Amino acid sequence: MKKLWSGRFKEKTSKIVEYFTGSISFDHRLWKYDIKGSIAHAKMLGKQGIITLEESKKIIKGLEEITNEIETGRFVFREELEDIHMNIESALIKKIGDTGGKLHTARSRNDQIALDLRLFIRTEIKGIIVLVKKFQKTLLNISIKHLDTLMPGYTHLQRAQPVLLSHHILAYVEMLQRDVERLKDALKRVNLLPLGSCAVAGTSLPVDRAYVAKLLEFDGVSQNSIDAVSDRDFVIEFLSNAAIIIMHLSRLAEELVLWSTEEFKFMELPDAFATGSSIMPQKKNPDVAELVRGKTGRVYGSLLSLLTIMKGLPLSYNRDMQEDKIPLFDTVDTIKACLTVMNEMFPGIKFNTKRMHETADEAYSTATDVAEYLVKKGLSFRKAHEITGKIVLYCVEGKKKLGDLTLKELHNFSGLFSNDIYSCLKAEESVKSRRSPGGTSLKEVTKQIIRLRKIVGGR
Amino acid sequence: MKKLWSGRFKEKTSKIVEYFTGSISFDHRLWKYDIKGSIAHAKMLGKQGIITLEESKKIIKGLEEITNEIETGRFVFREELEDIHMNIESALIKKIGDTGGKLHTARSRNDQIALDLRLFIRTEIKGIIVLVKKFQKTLLNISIKHLDTLMPGYTHLQRAQPVLLSHHILAYVEMLQRDVERLKDALKRVNLLPLGSCAVAGTSLPVDRAYVAKLLEFDGVSQNSIDAVSDRDFVIEFLSNAAIIIMHLSRLAEELVLWSTEEFKFMELPDAFATGSSIMPQKKNPDVAELVRGKTGRVYGSLLSLLTIMKGLPLSYNRDMQEDKIPLFDTVDTIKACLTVMNEMFPGIKFNTKRMHETADEAYSTATDVAEYLVKKGLSFRKAHEITGKIVLYCVEGKKKLGDLTLKELHNFSGLFSNDIYSCLKAEESVKSRRSPGGTSLKEVTKQIIRLRKIVGGR
Amino acid sequence: MKKLWSGRFKEKTSKIVEYFTGSISFDHRLWKYDIKGSIAHAKMLGKQGIITLEESKKIIKGLEEITNEIETGRFVFREELEDIHMNIESALIKKIGDTGGKLHTARSRNDQIALDLRLFIRTEIKGIIVLVKKFQKTLLNISIKHLDTLMPGYTHLQRAQPVLLSHHILAYVEMLQRDVERLKDALKRVNLLPLGSCAVAGTSLPVDRAYVAKLLEFDGVSQNSIDAVSDRDFVIEFLSNAAIIIMHLSRLAEELVLWSTEEFKFMELPDAFATGSSIMPQKKNPDVAELVRGKTGRVYGSLLSLLTIMKGLPLSYNRDMQEDKIPLFDTVDTIKACLTVMNEMFPGIKFNTKRMHETADEAYSTATDVAEYLVKKGLSFRKAHEITGKIVLYCVEGKKKLGDLTLKELHNFSGLFSNDIYSCLKAEESVKSRRSPGGTSLKEVTKQIIRLRKIVGGR
Amino acid sequence: MKKLWSGRFKEKTSKIVEYFTGSISFDHRLWKYDIKGSIAHAKMLGKQGIITLEESKKIIKGLEEITNEIETGRFVFREELEDIHMNIESALIKKIGDTGGKLHTARSRNDQIALDLRLFIRTEIKGIIVLVKKFQKTLLNISIKHLDTLMPGYTHLQRAQPVLLSHHILAYVEMLQRDVERLKDALKRVNLLPLGSCAVAGTSLPVDRAYVAKLLEFDGVSQNSIDAVSDRDFVIEFLSNAAIIIMHLSRLAEELVLWSTEEFKFMELPDAFATGSSIMPQKKNPDVAELVRGKTGRVYGSLLSLLTIMKGLPLSYNRDMQEDKIPLFDTVDTIKACLTVMNEMFPGIKFNTKRMHETADEAYSTATDVAEYLVKKGLSFRKAHEITGKIVLYCVEGKKKLGDLTLKELHNFSGLFSNDIYSCLKAEESVKSRRSPGGTSLKEVTKQIIRLRKIVGGR
Repeated sequence: MKKLWSGRFKEKTSKIVEYFTGSISFDHRLWKYDIKGSIAHAKMLGKQGIITLEESKKIIKGLEEITNEIETGRFVFREELEDIHMNIESALIKKIGDTGGKLHTARSRNDQIALDLRLFIRTEIKGIIVLVKKFQKTLLNISIKHLDTLMPGYTHLQRAQPVLLSHHILAYVEMLQRDVERLKDALKRVNLLPLGSCAVAGTSLPVDRAYVAKLLEFDGVSQNSIDAVSDRDFVIEFLSNAAIIIMHLSRLAEELVLWSTEEFKFMELPDAFATGSSIMPQKKNPDVAELVRGKTGRVYGSLLSLLTIMKGLPLSYNRDMQEDKIPLFDTVDTIKACLTVMNEMFPGIKFNTKRMHETADEAYSTATDVAEYLVKKGLSFRKAHEITGKIVLYCVEGKKKLGDLTLKELHNFSGLFSNDIYSCLKAEESVKSRRSPGGTSLKEVTKQIIRLRKIVGGR
Repeated sequence: MKKLWSGRFKEKTSKIVEYFTGSISFDHRLWKYDIKGSIAHAKMLGKQGIITLEESKKIIKGLEEITNEIETGRFVFREELEDIHMNIESALIKKIGDTGGKLHTARSRNDQIALDLRLFIRTEIKGIIVLVKKFQKTLLNISIKHLDTLMPGYTHLQRAQPVLLSHHILAYVEMLQRDVERLKDALKRVNLLPLGSCAVAGTSLPVDRAYVAKLLEFDGVSQNSIDAVSDRDFVIEFLSNAAIIIMHLSRLAEELVLWSTEEFKFMELPDAFATGSSIMPQKKNPDVAELVRGKTGRVYGSLLSLLTIMKGLPLSYNRDMQEDKIPLFDTVDTIKACLTVMNEMFPGIKFNTKRMHETADEAYSTATDVAEYLVKKGLSFRKAHEITGKIVLYCVEGKKKLGDLTLKELHNFSGLFSNDIYSCLKAEESVKSRRSPGGTSLKEVTKQIIRLRKIVGGR
Repeated sequence: MKKLWSGRFKEKTSKIVEYFTGSISFDHRLWKYDIKGSIAHAKMLGKQGIITLEESKKIIKGLEEITNEIETGRFVFREELEDIHMNIESALIKKIGDTGGKLHTARSRNDQIALDLRLFIRTEIKGIIVLVKKFQKTLLNISIKHLDTLMPGYTHLQRAQPVLLSHHILAYVEMLQRDVERLKDALKRVNLLPLGSCAVAGTSLPVDRAYVAKLLEFDGVSQNSIDAVSDRDFVIEFLSNAAIIIMHLSRLAEELVLWSTEEFKFMELPDAFATGSSIMPQKKNPDVAELVRGKTGRVYGSLLSLLTIMKGLPLSYNRDMQEDKIPLFDTVDTIKACLTVMNEMFPGIKFNTKRMHETADEAYSTATDVAEYLVKKGLSFRKAHEITGKIVLYCVEGKKKLGDLTLKELHNFSGLFSNDIYSCLKAEESVKSRRSPGGTSLKEVTKQIIRLRKIVGGR
Repeated sequence: MKKLWSGRFKEKTSKIVEYFTGSISFDHRLWKYDIKGSIAHAKMLGKQGIITLEESKKIIKGLEEITNEIETGRFVFREELEDIHMNIESALIKKIGDTGGKLHTARSRNDQIALDLRLFIRTEIKGIIVLVKKFQKTLLNISIKHLDTLMPGYTHLQRAQPVLLSHHILAYVEMLQRDVERLKDALKRVNLLPLGSCAVAGTSLPVDRAYVAKLLEFDGVSQNSIDAVSDRDFVIEFLSNAAIIIMHLSRLAEELVLWSTEEFKFMELPDAFATGSSIMPQKKNPDVAELVRGKTGRVYGSLLSLLTIMKGLPLSYNRDMQEDKIPLFDTVDTIKACLTVMNEMFPGIKFNTKRMHETADEAYSTATDVAEYLVKKGLSFRKAHEITGKIVLYCVEGKKKLGDLTLKELHNFSGLFSNDIYSCLKAEESVKSRRSPGGTSLKEVTKQIIRLRKIVGGR
């Protein structure tokens, strides 16, 4: 089949070049956006008299038929037609004749692909926001269910201070909320119409770009044709946001893996979300969490790919930019799959709240409370810290718990201790006392849940 | 010198561990923010009666003296004191005695470093925005100076259509404008107070976080103590923004390198911004542009570093996160240096406008105008494109320019040509005709300059 | 269909988990290696009496039938069977009954996938070496064809000194030769048998690993079962090598793009290896080169993906490692496609040798020869450099070429010049004089071609 | 101070350009290699009569004096002299007059920096190999000390099968051995002399490159001058190797972090290698391991930086390449520091062998042995696996251990069980049975230790 741009060429394109440069094998995924954009473009051409209204209608009807053919699987995408644009334009010309050749008036593939990508990303960002919110809701529900479950809070993966499981889970709801906000900010920069920039210089034909923008629900039009066809910032910005999302999920996944170990034993995965071993009959593996963690590499790699591609490219469009699609598509799919599977898996997780509570009480996790006790009795924090450190060392060497110490023993370290110290030593009391805003006390956590439900439910 | 946390330890820290884990060699850079945060914290402790007002004042006075010592170079940072926090707290205790040990009440290094980093990034983002705007202004001035200079617009680094140099330069002003907007969006997520999260769980002491936020001009306080000490999203988001900025600069740098070649010869660098060769006496090299392009690798690497660090880290703080500082500092310095040197260099560039204009007229760069001419005469764009392609091939083979063709020759390709075709063939006319919004016509470009001056000058 | 590991599970795996964790959609590509490994394993089991010889033969026959089914497209890969191993084992059991269940004796999927990957990479590395050598030969042939074509050698993309086009092209042959050597070194670490490591600990069954290694033509067996199932060094090492290969190709691609510009005009691409524009009828774009350059991002991204995946993974196998396949497969395909298309494209390139020669003579590219001339007359190189620099400046300001200067003018700069200086000023003479080993003189270049032909042809 | 290349320039270099392009702030680190290379070059120039023998000696003497000045801290590196080469050459000229200006005869900074880098990397690779071997020895000693300590082997961080601690540690010795081999392979490509390539084209002066190579102990000379000055493969290859090394260390570090948790409690760090908390007096954190893990990001970032820098650079030298030094230096320092600190820390680790042994016996970790028992009694592995899975499920639900089951209970699952099953159920017996090469039996592990001691001690 003859290339639509072959006028100036004497030889046919080599087969290997068709294969190597063709993008239809992956950009066919954009067909819906390509046709949507073409319909809006045709409407505008008709309205402006650049083509006749009849021609415009004929084109739109043809495009609608093609839509139908694609949806019902009757459309054949052809590699020798390079890309989604040429595949559809060729089919249109075949269907409605020379009039089809008028569709590409006042546009270029350079602004067309920018349009398709923007429509695609706009849709996908919105879809991802919905998935994030769903997952936030799931996590909020789990927080509510485990509102007062005690567990050890960790720093350096060492037990640090007792916290509430609900508080711990809310940390992820906060992260996801930042993800939503970043996506919304990105959307502002996505939602601009590039069409009408044509190849690079704009057009001499009397197009109405604002009208097309309105038809396609864009917030505005791009303001520089050279920039518009060579800009992939919006893809990179989305990929950066995706990288942070998967980073967040990888941290949660890491915790699921840890908590599922025999050693932590903080939770058990539902059978339906774990897998077995081909050789070891007893195994029940947290594969889903591991894969979410592993897929982080994939998303980081995609971000890096696009940054590498764009580095040092002179203006304006260069064919290198075609390589933006695979990392973009893969990232969209990966993020959506990870959010979905995590969201499905969480409600089935059984938290071993008894063990969590017990461990919260172990390992001197209320030592900071002892120090704060001494501060309230008038010591400087540094002194209080030092004394408590020595008490802990005494316990470690004598294999005692803090609660085992008699008042007499405590007085060897400081005369300020009295009987009220013992209530400080319980994880429960420790948690209750952390009433600072954002702290782990039940009251504070409840307040945060209410706040977050409002935000998350807000749409 | 004894570690402030050494109560529980029997052995002294190994020298190699001090060296390996110490961060004072780089985080001393944060001293101003560390002290600023400590002063606000001390004020709050006094106001809340957690320490006495006298103690509070004594601490603040001590910190001010330390500020003075650092500014005048009399302060010695000590590696065995690990980090900026411990260096300053130790100096304070040495200076004002045990009262100094009260400063660390109700805070941890975990929330303190989060605070310091946020104050640092806030300042630097604002500084970078100023530099971007300066550079935008410089570019706008060059656009104005070269308002009607013709040059070839490129796609695939092949001459595509004539454009205005001003239009081409404005493409970069647009990119930089998106950079500004991204930085401003990031700032929203930076400007929250983490202090009061303490180690991980909040505190039992009656702190007033909102007051500290107000003193430090934050927009609000973080809402989850676990999240607050383990969040580095704001660093990554800044690094992503920086990666896009340097990507933009690398594209501009690439063009400077290209345009400075003997082959393009579109411009000449001022002697003061070029360097010579140690062996070849005739060389004048565009080193600045090459280095800006090269430094792209550095910023990308830093972004990747931090993403790698954060991947799969369980909550909350882990020491890995200390590795955030070097890539952050390096990126800030690199971006600022690149923006500054580009901004200084540009006004001295001599554009070879004569050659630009000539080349805009060469290489069939108005072939699209011929096609649009035929469209206006009623042909479908596809037909018009094909005919024009054949004309170009005819010219290539006969070594002719489009303007050389007689009407008779043109009629061999289409009967629609008349004498008015010749005005289409000149770059000047071509540019003039691109009146679509965002297009390269003088009128449109002028409109954009006015719009952008308003935006850029807006601060 | 029941999972082969489901004994311990009460619930069925969730559909979404099957989809999310399944790898058959991509690892089916390993089927040939999987079966090859299984046949060798079955032979060994039979030889060792772990299963009977009849059982062994039955299994092998079954596997051969499956091979046939896959080759003729009659085999259905099923997502619910997770991966290539389970798909084939299930089919085998279905085909030959319970005996099929004996194949997985003394092995695990953990060592099986390590085996499949090593067989795959071994084959692909060898294939890539063949493609690199082919391309080296093509480049060598072009060097021979353009043995004495002059062109400007560049540093900083500024014309530096005249060189031979053949010499320039040989630089790439050298790079590719290092690529071959790196691949061969990598092969040493790939070509070890992991099978027999089982899940992690080895086996209590009396396997003969050396025998399997011999059957599969491995150089030896892995020496630590824990390491063997958790090692992906060989994948990363291959990806690093691939990253350097594509980096080399990206440099060559950049030069093709530059040399195809109107400005350089050093070459013309064959029509069959260029593409047109959908809007601009005159365009002939170097898309192949641009895409090769763009695909660099893809390979870099894949390398980074795997590095990210492996970071911080505790021993031994973790499911994250399943994510190694897509970046690996994609890199293999990308590298092979790029090498192939470059190799096909090169012979059709028409070098514009006339323009190359002319430009080699321009732009004071023999200034270094003037300096070396003065050195031979006794000046220190620094003095000679300075004098020549001044002569160039004099020429630039007076718009003269070096060859235009009279002896009188030259004497204003140094009395050492005599008539023999003029022969130094011609590019041809300059090139001829660079007789140092590795230099650009015809004699040296010829020597290198002979050396490289021996190396490249050597296999 | 006047630039040595300023002959052709009319304006002085701008201060900001000096600062921006200068490399002396970091490349001063190469001074020893720069002088070493210059001395060899001067010797050759003298030997070949390009300069007189007296001149040669004078230069060498001057360079030796400069060496002495640098070593004793009396040498001042000056930013306005750009780089290490110009700093030293200028000092030489100042010291010995115009003769100093003869040193740069027949060389360029382009081949000089390539030389310095190769000498630097050669030295550092050798140093790193020594450190790796030291660490291997340390690990081997620990293996010997814990030759028969039982522990659970993990897959998916779930207990899989009992293994020996020595076997687990040997896995890292294997990884490190591959690292050594990769470094040695890289060395082959590092150890070639680039000097004599000059700027790009070689030289017309009668240099003796082989002689310089011999003086500097290179294995040979580079064969293409254009390639030699634009090649940074050897830096990237080293960075790739470093990335794999730190990846290995990050896995080990992750295990140290896990094993130090209260939950695993497999080991305790020496006090001297742990750090405390500024707020929580009981904390003892594995900071060293965390930082090693975190520094992985840094090394990955450096690798990516250099790959990004080199992407798409046309031949030959471009100033972008100056950006290779900081990532290279940083990686060398990071790898050396991590290897050193890990090596120092390991001997002080107290392994909690009692707990390790106990956990090896828990969690059905010998289920595979049950399955292999049934295989030996004639069942197919698949059947055996299924039956064992059901037994495990029966135990999980009844909260029993495998060893608790009576023969009667076992017979409910299979009639093949007899009394000899009970010895299979002990971790000790399980380990003993894994006699396959590379397996975890004491005999096999001992064999490996002997093999590795030979390799590691071998140099």
